[in-house]
Amino acid sequence: MNSYYSQENHGPFETISVGRLELEEGGVLDDCTLAVATYGELNANKTNAILIPTWYSGSSKIMEQAYIGRGRALDPQRYFIMVVNQIGNGLSLSPSNAPADIAGPRFPRVRIGDDVRAQHRLVTRHFGIERLALVVGGSMGAQQTYEWAVRYPDMVERAAPIAGTARNTEHDFLFAETLVEAITTDPGYRDGHYAAAGEVAAGLRRHAKLWTVMGWSTEFFRCGRHRALGFNTMDEFVDNFMTGYFSPMDPGNLLCMAWKWQRGDVSRHCGGDLAAALGRIQAKTFVMPISHDMFFPPSDCLVEQQLIRGSEFHPLTSVDGHLALFGTDADCMAELDARLRELLAL
Amino acid sequence: MNSYYSQENHGPFETISVGRLELEEGGVLDDCTLAVATYGELNANKTNAILIPTWYSGSSKIMEQAYIGRGRALDPQRYFIMVVNQIGNGLSLSPSNAPADIAGPRFPRVRIGDDVRAQHRLVTRHFGIERLALVVGGSMGAQQTYEWAVRYPDMVERAAPIAGTARNTEHDFLFAETLVEAITTDPGYRDGHYAAAGEVAAGLRRHAKLWTVMGWSTEFFRCGRHRALGFNTMDEFVDNFMTGYFSPMDPGNLLCMAWKWQRGDVSRHCGGDLAAALGRIQAKTFVMPISHDMFFPPSDCLVEQQLIRGSEFHPLTSVDGHLALFGTDADCMAELDARLRELLAL
Repeated sequence: MNSYYSQENHGPFETISVGRLELEEGGVLDDCTLAVATYGELNANKTNAILIPTWYSGSSKIMEQAYIGRGRALDPQRYFIMVVNQIGNGLSLSPSNAPADIAGPRFPRVRIGDDVRAQHRLVTRHFGIERLALVVGGSMGAQQTYEWAVRYPDMVERAAPIAGTARNTEHDFLFAETLVEAITTDPGYRDGHYAAAGEVAAGLRRHAKLWTVMGWSTEFFRCGRHRALGFNTMDEFVDNFMTGYFSPMDPGNLLCMAWKWQRGDVSRHCGGDLAAALGRIQAKTFVMPISHDMFFPPSDCLVEQQLIRGSEFHPLTSVDGHLALFGTDADCMAELDARLRELLAL
Repeated sequence: MNSYYSQENHGPFETISVGRLELEEGGVLDDCTLAVATYGELNANKTNAILIPTWYSGSSKIMEQAYIGRGRALDPQRYFIMVVNQIGNGLSLSPSNAPADIAGPRFPRVRIGDDVRAQHRLVTRHFGIERLALVVGGSMGAQQTYEWAVRYPDMVERAAPIAGTARNTEHDFLFAETLVEAITTDPGYRDGHYAAAGEVAAGLRRHAKLWTVMGWSTEFFRCGRHRALGFNTMDEFVDNFMTGYFSPMDPGNLLCMAWKWQRGDVSRHCGGDLAAALGRIQAKTFVMPISHDMFFPPSDCLVEQQLIRGSEFHPLTSVDGHLALFGTDADCMAELDARLRELLAL
């Protein structure tokens, strides 16, 4: 067990079983557990439920810290907010915490659709909720948001995919592949048979460097934003911030999530027809890329938004690029809050 | 010897010695040879000389094929054009062709400034030329162009740095580091003691993937430009085009060039003061980034252009991004030609 994924680091969260989950790729999770953090109270009519799925490497904790709060758009005083950790993130059922028969490299392939079906059981059976006022998430959280809106169109009243796509692009697939290879080519990875994340430290550091190159933006570094965040040099930023962030994580968990990320694609519901799939969406949808995102760029998000009936395109402005999702740019977060308020008022 | 770097593949070129070159980092090239291809004839007053340095991984051949020709801006009927292969590119003195005492991993560190001093000897001593009508180059060729204009301001009448910077950015340094690590982490690299490029094939393939992610643009792939170039899938594009391009090259040569690229910095002439260094430039300068370049983006080039007296900022438009330099986008090349004609008429 990797001690990084603890209640101390990421809690409080509750672990809830949604039962046996047959996976789209053919595997089975006999007892699929989801780690869930909730904020606020469900009202009597059950009309104030918000679902937030998590992104690659993230947990419910960052969503709480950066997105949820009194006076924020996602206000626990008004809404019942469920943050559901994605399968494979180390808190929900994952390579790092699974029973021996599916632990580590034996963990089956999971797709975005599997996550969303598991979340659907959680929402309907565990919480008894039939309508979601909003599904909102960033990056892989946006992929899950799209999947929700396409798979369960009559359950999702509003959708806010931030910095992510409904169907992953070829470019993004390849970027994720470079992340995967940074890890798997580390001799310490040993085809998944490492004893601890530390044995894959070199691979995780290269993975962190690739995230540094693509996760922020050229403008971020030109403007010295890394220095503004407290790191004097690029080396310090890579070592202390980026590598510091990723290095305690389980490599197998990251690979499980990366595989899902690469294959996010709602068009699977309609035989590969993206327009037909996005045409199923009934939610009021705000598509919100981030202006300087290098791998989920506004241009890729715009072509999808144009396929969603009644949707609006509201790019957020931040030189922090994709990783503005971390909440590093207060102006961007304020812009997001304003948009979410607008959406929630519709 | 690596047979890729042959007259058959890259010629005709002439190999010219510029003598013993003491390097900025302290090493020495006892007999520094430069591979040079010339086009056209020097006029009697020696006023029609154009110098073109080469980029990372490139040779004089691509410059001939994509940039030089009758009716083009760089017209051999009007100009005497010298394309000088950079040190380390496999044609000029390089790890792959050096005498045993400095071959392979024993090759000394070379800087952009060393290249430009070697080229200066070539131009003045070998060709007897005291003024250059134009120095023009892309990427590392732009780095050398800036170095020429700052180091020998009264020799350079016009300068056209395309898709490159005068002082490399922290972001670009890190991107190049991921390229370096893709190669050096291949067990077949053996700290430079490989017998042939093929032993580092896996590393060169990862290096090609990183180039695929950063070298073009997200729009390039969204618009299906890779398919328009004749590759049905991303895999085909990576395997046949990108890996096919890089895999015959000598890994040590690429690392020699990458080290230089990372450290290109004209501010070294003025104790780190970039404004002072660029203030030395007397050349009429057109700064020409490419609109969709992911690592030498227009915004990084613009801040430098603003420090160059009388210069003009003329970004070229292409979704092909940095690798529009290959000449894949005919409109972009036409735009470049128009700008170069304008500059040459000043």
